[in-house]
Parts: sequence; structure tokens; C-alpha cells
Amino acid sequence: MPGVSSLNALIEALKDGLPINKVLISRSRHDAKIATVVRMCRELRIVFQFVPAEAVERKAGVKNQGVYAEIAPVSFFSLDTVLADAKTGLVVILDNIEDTGNLGAMIRSAAAVASDAVLVSIRNSAPVNETVWRTSAGAMGKVRLVQSRNLAMDIEKLKKAGFWVVATDPHAKMNFYDFDFKSKTAVIFGNESKGVSPLLKKNADQLLAIPHAQGVESLNVSAAAAIILYEAWRQKKG
Amino acid sequence: MPGVSSLNALIEALKDGLPINKVLISRSRHDAKIATVVRMCRELRIVFQFVPAEAVERKAGVKNQGVYAEIAPVSFFSLDTVLADAKTGLVVILDNIEDTGNLGAMIRSAAAVASDAVLVSIRNSAPVNETVWRTSAGAMGKVRLVQSRNLAMDIEKLKKAGFWVVATDPHAKMNFYDFDFKSKTAVIFGNESKGVSPLLKKNADQLLAIPHAQGVESLNVSAAAAIILYEAWRQKKG
Repeated sequence: MPGVSSLNALIEALKDGLPINKVLISRSRHDAKIATVVRMCRELRIVFQFVPAEAVERKAGVKNQGVYAEIAPVSFFSLDTVLADAKTGLVVILDNIEDTGNLGAMIRSAAAVASDAVLVSIRNSAPVNETVWRTSAGAMGKVRLVQSRNLAMDIEKLKKAGFWVVATDPHAKMNFYDFDFKSKTAVIFGNESKGVSPLLKKNADQLLAIPHAQGVESLNVSAAAAIILYEAWRQKKG
Repeated sequence: MPGVSSLNALIEALKDGLPINKVLISRSRHDAKIATVVRMCRELRIVFQFVPAEAVERKAGVKNQGVYAEIAPVSFFSLDTVLADAKTGLVVILDNIEDTGNLGAMIRSAAAVASDAVLVSIRNSAPVNETVWRTSAGAMGKVRLVQSRNLAMDIEKLKKAGFWVVATDPHAKMNFYDFDFKSKTAVIFGNESKGVSPLLKKNADQLLAIPHAQGVESLNVSAAAAIILYEAWRQKKG
């Protein structure tokens, strides 16, 4: 299990709302920063425990700063669980998103519109780790994440479960706001420079464009995701 | 004038569409990367010039790689010019955006909806530099940028020119899609953690919220900007 043993990093992690299981604090240390950690743990209702210096040392090494926090590993769901349990009928598929900032922002937007799940391709994507937790502002804990070994197969599964699968494509003939998102829909967003993979585009039921002013490049992928997911949510809410 | 003298950085800058005035190439160098630079300059119609080694040395130092590219400085407009010339009646105000990625993505979204201008507060904002050019995917050259020394004063100016000034606020009673964006509108987006400054919120004609699922934090600021700017654009286009 990953851990945080620097005092400054721990205070940042507490501020950022990282999923912390337990904080161990050495009984022999007393300073302002340790007091801050104790106060924050109390406020945030995070379990903390005063332990002998040796207990911290075993986890954090000899040159420790008197604290050790266990970070909860990210929990992933299976696509089957998600499908059995779908509520809003909106699934987000992230194909090869390389930037952790984009990944976090997109998971945050997906959570904001109560998506049933976010599928993240394992290959070629930024790792779904504590950095993404931070860039998602903790939203990573508010939406079900599915690690996909094979997006093409998972897309077939979604189709069989009655989902319409759409992909963003700057050259698509249909604009996103002309699509009917009221049915169960899975939306694929693709790589920052290459867009959605050709195979996945081919497998999609519909390609959707976001119109933009002439002479301007397409949008940043997390901006595109926010726009489309909010349109889907608005239509679903009626 | 800023310059690029590393071969790899220059190739990246050409790929990223950085605004390059001229590339100097030493006559005494011949290798695959220099050939790439020449080919890219031809394709992109960027002026390049073969010069004596000393001419590159004068710009790039003794340990140069045989190239030197002058980057065009970012050009800023005055608010008066922008107001005299407003076409779409949509102005974006960026109050204290600290992250260059967000700044670039927001300028890109502003350009995509043909905003008349983007005002960026000089104080406490990320500098509008080459990194932002890159994160904006070159959109920084497609929309008028105004450096604001005093956003409160510029907002008054916008109001006098007939603009409605709105600010995003998670606690606002009105949802963004209930606002009428057809009139001339300036939208303020605020700092990543603190939101729009209290003074600017007080000066705004209307505060707007983006609704989201319960238990989820507000959106990333560049996602919020994309959603609101696209709604404004859609309304304006009718």
C-alpha cells in the first residue's frame, strides 16, 4: 500500500482530500506541523494513532519525520458490476488520455454529471494514481472507475447492454447537441493529439462534432468532455 | 525578443505552432535534425535563412546547435480597441488563473466561440507566455488578449459599453442556462481554489451556477468555462 512519510506532503495530502486510511504519529515528536496534522485529522475524521517511534520507523525508515500515512489504493469496478447497477445511463470512455491534468478534470466532470462509470484504457493512458486524485479534486472517489484492458471489447459489451456508443470527431457531420442523449449512452473521448482511435470510431454508433469558430483548432479534450457531458446531463434531466 | 536555440525544442516549437518570426540556420551544419527544421519551415511557410556560423553564435552562444529561432512576442490589445471593434459581444475575463494548462485551455475555448477578447489580470495570474501558447494549441494567436491592470475598472468600462457582466459562483441561485446570453456579455472566471474575487462578484450584474450531482465538488475551472462559453455561443447563434 502506498504511503506518505513527509510532513509537508502529508499536510498537502490532507488538504487535497487524498483517501487516507490511517495516520501513524510518533509519540516522541512534538512540533507545530505535527499539531497541524492532528488538527486536520480530527477535522476530516481521519483515523490517527500515537505510536512508539519504532512503529513509524518500520514504515517510514530511520530518517523519518515522525509520521506515516497509509493511502487507500484506488478501487476499480468491473464493467459487469457497473452495468448491473447503471442508474443514469451515462458512461464515459477515456481512450488514451496522456495528461494527468486532463484525466483528473474529465473524471471530475464525469462525477459532476453523475455518470455511472468512467472506463479508462490501461494501455497508453496516464496512470490513475494519487496525482489524478488531486487533479480530480477528489472526484475520483465519487464515480465508479473501470480499468479496461480492451476498450473495443468493452464497447461491444456496452452495446449489448443497450448503450448507444458515440465518439467525438472534429469532422463528424452531426453536432453534439443534435444527438439524443436521453437513451443510455457511452461517450468516447480520445487522445490529446490523435483523438479517438480509428478502431473505436469505426465501432461507434455515431460520431459527434463540437462546432467552433473558423480558423481555430479543436478544443482541449477536457473542455470538449465537459461540454458534451453537460449537454447529455441536461437532456437526461429534461 | 525570446528565442529558441535547442534543435529539439525548435522542432517541438514548430510542431506546436509557436509564433516564430525567423529561423537562422548555420551554413556549416548538416544533419538529419537540421533537415527536419528546413522541411518544417518550408511546410509551415516560416522564414528561414542560412547564415555564417558566427551569426548563429552571436544569438545562441558559442555552444550552439546551429540554429536560432526568434519567437514573436505575444501581442496584446487595449480594451478600448476591443470595445470599438466588438463583433460577437462575448468577452471572457480571467481573474487570477494560476495554472498555465487552465489558462491555455480557457483561451482556446474563448477562441473556439469567437470571443471578442480575453482579459487576463496581470497580478496573480500565470504569465501569458510560450507555455500558454502551447497549452492553447496556438489559439492564443486567434483571439484578442487584453492585459488588465485593474479588472474592477475594466469591468466598469465594459458595463458602460453596454455589456452585462456575469460571474460564476457555485452558490448562485441562477443556473447558467437560464441566463440570456444574447445581449453583450462578459463572463468572469476565477481562481482554481478561491473562485472569482469577492470584489468582482460584488460588481457583477448576475452570478451564475453550474449545477452538479450531489456530493461532488465543483468543476475544474477550464471545464466550467467551456460549458458556459458554449452555452453563450449557442444562444447567440440562435
